[in-house]
Amino acid sequence: MEIQLLRSLRDKKHREELGLYAVEGDKLVSELVAAGHPFEQIFATPDWRGEATHPVTPEDMARVSHFPTPSPVLAVGRIQRAELSPGELESGLTLALDGVQDPGNVGTIIRVADWFGIDRVLLSPGCADLYSQKVIQSSMGSFARVRALVTPLGAALAGLRAPVIGCALDGRDVRDIPAEPAAVIVIGSEGRGLSEEVRSLLRYSVTIPRVGSAESLNAAVAAAVVCDNLRRVRG
Amino acid sequence: MEIQLLRSLRDKKHREELGLYAVEGDKLVSELVAAGHPFEQIFATPDWRGEATHPVTPEDMARVSHFPTPSPVLAVGRIQRAELSPGELESGLTLALDGVQDPGNVGTIIRVADWFGIDRVLLSPGCADLYSQKVIQSSMGSFARVRALVTPLGAALAGLRAPVIGCALDGRDVRDIPAEPAAVIVIGSEGRGLSEEVRSLLRYSVTIPRVGSAESLNAAVAAAVVCDNLRRVRG
Repeated sequence: MEIQLLRSLRDKKHREELGLYAVEGDKLVSELVAAGHPFEQIFATPDWRGEATHPVTPEDMARVSHFPTPSPVLAVGRIQRAELSPGELESGLTLALDGVQDPGNVGTIIRVADWFGIDRVLLSPGCADLYSQKVIQSSMGSFARVRALVTPLGAALAGLRAPVIGCALDGRDVRDIPAEPAAVIVIGSEGRGLSEEVRSLLRYSVTIPRVGSAESLNAAVAAAVVCDNLRRVRG
Repeated sequence: MEIQLLRSLRDKKHREELGLYAVEGDKLVSELVAAGHPFEQIFATPDWRGEATHPVTPEDMARVSHFPTPSPVLAVGRIQRAELSPGELESGLTLALDGVQDPGNVGTIIRVADWFGIDRVLLSPGCADLYSQKVIQSSMGSFARVRALVTPLGAALAGLRAPVIGCALDGRDVRDIPAEPAAVIVIGSEGRGLSEEVRSLLRYSVTIPRVGSAESLNAAVAAAVVCDNLRRVRG
């Protein structure tokens, strides 16, 4: 694989054209490999302790790396575009992200979903790109385990029997959330909240009671508090 | 103030030598000003809608900015080193950060503390620098409202009557946390957990029950879930 091509994978446009993505970093790649994540190619310098498909010199790694200080390993995977099965959202717990643009938040929410045993994470097309290095890095090994799907939320959530529950500033107390056997919890962007389309599909909203003065909570923080409350009442 | 000096404030070493820090960005500076945060100098181009003490040209702003794309405003404040009052930790709720190195996490935790009405945040000297742009940016307006103190945790927490409660992987279920009238909740670094010194001072630890497979939770996420549970049982 050419240096130019590997370097180009930092851009979403090129990732989508090529159907490939790249992740770097000893800890991250090792975690994903240990979690059974399928990579097509693993470029590594002699410093790396894992198994490389493509041994490279530190000089070549410096040329392909997306970082100012290159790590000893860069792994390339094929983008998998999972699709929702019919009726899939009617069972289990789903986190849906409505325009969450910060890649650190998207990755952290994937990790939150993994911790709380959430069955899947939906990303609206306006979210940070699932295959960006920053998203994968923030999700850590959870990227290999959590079922994450990019899909327009309006179509996915319309007509569901399972309740669609928004996280908003004017909902009912999240601590009184019912023990929903199946549910979709929607987290909006910190700046703009939930989109109008999603708001029209909500069964109800929940709010994390505020004692102090902050205007909002970080999206990943809010997602975790809602998941914790739902797990507390529901198991 | 010289361009060279303003530029140097991106480094902790220079901030400490000069006793000054700088924050940039229309939204952030406007929020802090609105929250009554005291700045000594506000450099702004004609594009800024707020009040500037030092009008500058876009060309000068490009020279002082810490960002590749300069914002219309850069505000300079004096570093305030607050100190704990005797007995202060015996009342109210304290979040203590033990070596939380990621500045985004430190800032997000300050915002979490503001949301849940936590009385103060302690940072061990090994935490990310409270006055870095990234910490202030992640805390948003909460930086102006939350009492944050940098202090060695061993000395601050030794001999307290209020319980020191660790957030760890092997504690009691956080959902059964008692309604402590006063408490210090300690959050460790994601990589290394709590330091040995702090562990020896804990009354007990709490754990966020895990249903799935993630190895850990983000530090800010964990702090928020513990705060939410304590507020739920305690008010």
